[in-house]
Amino acid sequence: MKTNRNVGMLIVFLLITIAMAAAFFPSVNHNVAEGMASITAIDMDSLDGATRTIFDSITYARSIHILAMLLLGFGFLMTFLRGHEFTSLTATFLAVSISIPVYMIVKSFLPGEFEVMHINGFLFAEFAAASLLICMGAVLGRLKMDQYFVLGILFTIAYIFNEWLLLESGIFQGFLDTGGSVAIHAFGAYFGLGVVAMTDKKFAGKPAPQMDKISNEFCLLGSMVLWVFWPSFTSSVVAPELGYSTVLNTVLALCGSTLATFIFSKLIRGKVEIEDIANAALAGGVCIGSTCSTANPGFSMVIGICAGILSTLGFAVIAPKVCKLIRGTDTCGVHNLHGMPGLLGGLFAIAITGNVGVQVGAVVCTVVVGLVLGRICGAILGFFGTKEDTYGDEDDFILEE
Amino acid sequence: MKTNRNVGMLIVFLLITIAMAAAFFPSVNHNVAEGMASITAIDMDSLDGATRTIFDSITYARSIHILAMLLLGFGFLMTFLRGHEFTSLTATFLAVSISIPVYMIVKSFLPGEFEVMHINGFLFAEFAAASLLICMGAVLGRLKMDQYFVLGILFTIAYIFNEWLLLESGIFQGFLDTGGSVAIHAFGAYFGLGVVAMTDKKFAGKPAPQMDKISNEFCLLGSMVLWVFWPSFTSSVVAPELGYSTVLNTVLALCGSTLATFIFSKLIRGKVEIEDIANAALAGGVCIGSTCSTANPGFSMVIGICAGILSTLGFAVIAPKVCKLIRGTDTCGVHNLHGMPGLLGGLFAIAITGNVGVQVGAVVCTVVVGLVLGRICGAILGFFGTKEDTYGDEDDFILEE
Amino acid sequence: MKTNRNVGMLIVFLLITIAMAAAFFPSVNHNVAEGMASITAIDMDSLDGATRTIFDSITYARSIHILAMLLLGFGFLMTFLRGHEFTSLTATFLAVSISIPVYMIVKSFLPGEFEVMHINGFLFAEFAAASLLICMGAVLGRLKMDQYFVLGILFTIAYIFNEWLLLESGIFQGFLDTGGSVAIHAFGAYFGLGVVAMTDKKFAGKPAPQMDKISNEFCLLGSMVLWVFWPSFTSSVVAPELGYSTVLNTVLALCGSTLATFIFSKLIRGKVEIEDIANAALAGGVCIGSTCSTANPGFSMVIGICAGILSTLGFAVIAPKVCKLIRGTDTCGVHNLHGMPGLLGGLFAIAITGNVGVQVGAVVCTVVVGLVLGRICGAILGFFGTKEDTYGDEDDFILEE
Repeated sequence: MKTNRNVGMLIVFLLITIAMAAAFFPSVNHNVAEGMASITAIDMDSLDGATRTIFDSITYARSIHILAMLLLGFGFLMTFLRGHEFTSLTATFLAVSISIPVYMIVKSFLPGEFEVMHINGFLFAEFAAASLLICMGAVLGRLKMDQYFVLGILFTIAYIFNEWLLLESGIFQGFLDTGGSVAIHAFGAYFGLGVVAMTDKKFAGKPAPQMDKISNEFCLLGSMVLWVFWPSFTSSVVAPELGYSTVLNTVLALCGSTLATFIFSKLIRGKVEIEDIANAALAGGVCIGSTCSTANPGFSMVIGICAGILSTLGFAVIAPKVCKLIRGTDTCGVHNLHGMPGLLGGLFAIAITGNVGVQVGAVVCTVVVGLVLGRICGAILGFFGTKEDTYGDEDDFILEE
Repeated sequence: MKTNRNVGMLIVFLLITIAMAAAFFPSVNHNVAEGMASITAIDMDSLDGATRTIFDSITYARSIHILAMLLLGFGFLMTFLRGHEFTSLTATFLAVSISIPVYMIVKSFLPGEFEVMHINGFLFAEFAAASLLICMGAVLGRLKMDQYFVLGILFTIAYIFNEWLLLESGIFQGFLDTGGSVAIHAFGAYFGLGVVAMTDKKFAGKPAPQMDKISNEFCLLGSMVLWVFWPSFTSSVVAPELGYSTVLNTVLALCGSTLATFIFSKLIRGKVEIEDIANAALAGGVCIGSTCSTANPGFSMVIGICAGILSTLGFAVIAPKVCKLIRGTDTCGVHNLHGMPGLLGGLFAIAITGNVGVQVGAVVCTVVVGLVLGRICGAILGFFGTKEDTYGDEDDFILEE
Repeated sequence: MKTNRNVGMLIVFLLITIAMAAAFFPSVNHNVAEGMASITAIDMDSLDGATRTIFDSITYARSIHILAMLLLGFGFLMTFLRGHEFTSLTATFLAVSISIPVYMIVKSFLPGEFEVMHINGFLFAEFAAASLLICMGAVLGRLKMDQYFVLGILFTIAYIFNEWLLLESGIFQGFLDTGGSVAIHAFGAYFGLGVVAMTDKKFAGKPAPQMDKISNEFCLLGSMVLWVFWPSFTSSVVAPELGYSTVLNTVLALCGSTLATFIFSKLIRGKVEIEDIANAALAGGVCIGSTCSTANPGFSMVIGICAGILSTLGFAVIAPKVCKLIRGTDTCGVHNLHGMPGLLGGLFAIAITGNVGVQVGAVVCTVVVGLVLGRICGAILGFFGTKEDTYGDEDDFILEE
């Protein structure tokens, strides 16, 4: 009976959350409708040099927020793996330090409009680094430090190729993915799964992530850093006048996924699993990416709720099946946090663009390109050494204990 | 004799600190006087759309700093309670994810000038979340996760009511509380004490906060995040031309309270108590709230010193008496950090406005409304389950250990 | 044979890193060349009040980033010393709270153009605090809390004197040190060594820094905070139109030093030492200081690589010799991270200014003034108590364990 009462209360909480989302639709909330109607585009071309410098300088704060997400956010999110903390954090340092220059160099020698000496060039390089870190989450514990160096270079080139396919090749004209649900999150996740599928058979003992209280606290620290700075991630490349609505959409999506994660983690498992909170609570940010500047606040919160539910289901139910399918372990569960919610975000954009073929096509393309190039990368990484056990800090670091 | 020498040195340190404050008064320091005189108001109404977007975009960085305070700051400040870390951090996630949408929805359906689609709407929602997190600090360990969900909704509505009383009802015309010493900090603290007074009798064993080295390090991390971003909290809604003087006032108030806390913690206790440093060092930020944009730097540092002394006295001497009075435990000592320094901040504003009746009236109103509504909320929370022991992570989370 | 293969791979990695640096030179990369050529100066004097307020408000975000570096960055970087964490963090709080007001007061009473009520006044005070925290890193574990109070005041006055010598006295006209490689980093380090040389003989047992997994994780947290916000440190006082190129230069220098640190730590020691990663990875930021706004991206990455190599050599090889020379221990290795890379940065600037005498003179002056004033300060600190053992948290804090 106590359980029934608990389930009843959780359903009431879910209804309250959905009601909150509904109250943010412009059709319901005139305050929202008027606010959205009053947004007028700024003619950027008519601005003088000082004003353009001002807008770039404002964007700078966002680029630093994203840097915090990369190092502090992803870095500490990956420290939940006990006995692997130094490797996780150092690999994060390496990943950022390789992918940013490689991205900038490759892009500035390729034809196209990339400007290395403009803040946007730095932002796009940071996006590549974010995608690499997501990919690393899948293979964590199965590579040694040297291999992260090689992975960083190979991944960044593959990322540039997929980015070109989606946004510049002209194949998917009109593809909506402002904050990179598909191009950044899903690509990183599926590339990572590809690498896992190729490298994981070599391991006799699969990595059973061990956690304790403190490693989980550091992990929650990373998670909170990601949550806090996520609005800067999604709003960094949108037009200035859409900046705030993008921020609000992102925050509400995160609120939605956080509440949904709490409710569904308890509904499915009986008690809350801290891994769900640290990860699935962020799924709203992943999923709102595609439509962050075009959705309305109510729709954003709905997207967040759906993403939180999907991601929690991913961690609790779907993950074991995926591991079986790829015959490997997705250490950080990036498929649950970045893979599926990323694809879902790309598909939610259909509700706004109405362009079913383009969105579905780009989503499928990303999954296929990610998995195939990931497998190739995994095969190459195999030349740089393999072993039967999973890797730990003792493989690469001088430990005094 | 060694003790006497120690006391002598601490008194010298106190005199140096007070001398530093004195040196910042415009009557002493012409550099300060000229700087303050040169501030000229910007006519916001005459600005074009692009410039107004620029000011809003600049404010955005502050809104993210406040978000960092909410999740990383308050969240980790509350992890000092050992065996309750997952609950503290997850409850922080929940509190933010509930109070921001609830505040925005309620305010946008109420009559008034609230603009949900403007950055200020988000800022005011963040203030409500901050006040809720303060309230939660009082009851920490006496609620389970579900109850934090309910508390989040009830508190936010009560907060809106008190905010209306103080700032919009017209009862306290001319009430000065720019950074929310009274409306945000004191209200949260007294509401929390009200809840404690109502729920705490049910507990056979009162929560004796257990700490260790590591939980205190995480707690200091939270404290430092709050210190660092506090200037963004107080300056987020002031006029742009007053932005820097508000920032300087806030920083000097924090410096004052940090120095005073160190000196008085050692004076009162013989050695420094790390709990004092983590908490009372922030009291200057709480207390400068009301007058952050109107005080001068010297007065701000005096306010900070007084707040630090009061708050350290609170933790060391006053707290046990308050616990006896309300027959319950204020787990995080929010009365010492947010309650008394908040009220003091509201009263310090009399030195600037000269409006004794209004400031005292608003302070009394906040204490009464907070305590009464807190008790009612506590009674309602009682329907959602009670138990004799205090709550720990084992009640709500799957623990592997 | 396995070792040979490892060394071979590390050399390949080094060549890749150098090739990346080369690809960023404007003579190689036309995208970089065009970007740098398109930068046009903004005439700040012609701007109206609102626009000047805008530029100051944008700078504000950087000042808060620097505050995060001071408290969270330096604070947690110093927690690697086990059994000394509370002292490290509280001393950080004290250092910031003393040096900022003391710097502002002294400068505003001295003749000169210092404006206490302008954001730049706050930035310069933060630089003094950074330099003090560097100095504290050298003596960590050999002072008790009271002495940090005294050190804070004495150091800040000495810092102002050296700053005046380098930048205002006219002796070193044309000295290039935009981001403070020499005036901030090297001065703090050599002053600290001076204090150590004077105080360390009193200690029977030299502090052997004990570390464990968790204290190193907190240390890496501090390191990452410094890495992330470093671009704000170097770009805070440069002209707005040079803001982004300064940021890019800083990021590339940090990437260079991080990669070089990983490669050389493994080359020299066989395995990676986490202390190298936490510290030497930042050396690029220290070394790019002098030329952050005038170098090109390729040169910046070269500077970063050189700084990373020098700093790693410092920790692995040079440090014991320095300790012998000064007859004391540099606890945090600030000579390796801030001392030598700071001097190197000052000398690299010769490649840009061509002004050998001035740069070398200023570097030598800083070393001499730092060491001499540091020794005097150390002698004064001796009056405030000495003991034979190194200090730990038990000396100043109430510990429950």
